[in-house]
Amino acid sequence: MKPRRITHAERTKAEILAVAVPLAARIGLEGLTIGRLADEMGMSKGGVFAHFGSKEGLQVATVEAAFQAFADEVLTPAMAAPEGIARLRALLSGYLDYVEKRKDAGGCFFTAASLEFDDRPGEVRERISGLLAARTELIVEELRKAVARGELQGDPEDIAFEATAISTGANVQFQLSKDPSVLARARALLEARLAAHELKPSKRRAR
Amino acid sequence: MKPRRITHAERTKAEILAVAVPLAARIGLEGLTIGRLADEMGMSKGGVFAHFGSKEGLQVATVEAAFQAFADEVLTPAMAAPEGIARLRALLSGYLDYVEKRKDAGGCFFTAASLEFDDRPGEVRERISGLLAARTELIVEELRKAVARGELQGDPEDIAFEATAISTGANVQFQLSKDPSVLARARALLEARLAAHELKPSKRRAR
Repeated sequence: MKPRRITHAERTKAEILAVAVPLAARIGLEGLTIGRLADEMGMSKGGVFAHFGSKEGLQVATVEAAFQAFADEVLTPAMAAPEGIARLRALLSGYLDYVEKRKDAGGCFFTAASLEFDDRPGEVRERISGLLAARTELIVEELRKAVARGELQGDPEDIAFEATAISTGANVQFQLSKDPSVLARARALLEARLAAHELKPSKRRAR
Repeated sequence: MKPRRITHAERTKAEILAVAVPLAARIGLEGLTIGRLADEMGMSKGGVFAHFGSKEGLQVATVEAAFQAFADEVLTPAMAAPEGIARLRALLSGYLDYVEKRKDAGGCFFTAASLEFDDRPGEVRERISGLLAARTELIVEELRKAVARGELQGDPEDIAFEATAISTGANVQFQLSKDPSVLARARALLEARLAAHELKPSKRRAR
């Protein structure tokens, strides 16, 4: 199949979003206005507006572009690891790598966006909530597989809650302190918690 | 000793801060301007300004007033519990009560303030950072006592990191979802983690 050609409009939209994501990470999604983006891009307001239709459309597109970056950096590489506990380790350590890389750029985009929009009903909040739920579901799914493979024991939803809460808490503490020992402690703790749920190979049932 | 009389100026300042704390929880510390507070209070800008001297002074005073509320609601009652593991339980469950009570008011003031100011050097950030460190130190201190009393085993700093990360992560998830099962899961998890570190009475060394 021949790859579809990217249109000029799609390329411009992608260029605007490449500016919008780090800008939103720095000043918040609410600070992201079509006027401000037009200034940053050297475009007219109408030119930016045409791609998004409204401020909310711009915010939703920015959340989606931020998730695409997260997927490219964390989820897709993790999916290349063998399913079960190896993939879980890749998902959890990949998140902390993502946070570390954004040390001076607001840390985890979704923690910041979540706290910014938690009391603002609407499409932006729904999208943030849906994407975070999808990420948790991916972790729960790998935990289910690891339990089914006899690698782990425990309740997948409980273990996923523990792992995501520790990861989010570490992101918040790291962003404030910028202290790399916070992430080192989080990595060690996540590994210890997985190990605590892990079944010794001798105890695993035959597949 | 006769209690010192509260001056009119002190009372007015306290009244302004009683409005500023929930307002900042809703719109962020950065949205908290002297003009906006003057409107909310029906005062002149000059009247509000006189109490704080600057926007930064107002923000710092608001952070301190929010911490005073947290201390009154969580820290002081916990300090009434017997030292060691009982006080730890009171500190950890008290935090989740505090979060639950602020379900529609931004949740934990300090998580929100921390993410808002993590990349803005200055006195506001320093104060948030100092108060959060003081709260963690209180937990570490109780853990040290619990270890010294033979109630718990483990590294106090590691256990404190785990407990505060889970608590912060639960606050973020609860604020977005407003789902009470998040807090129930966090309570059960914190209790299970303390229980895992707890020494059975038969194994405790004599005091």
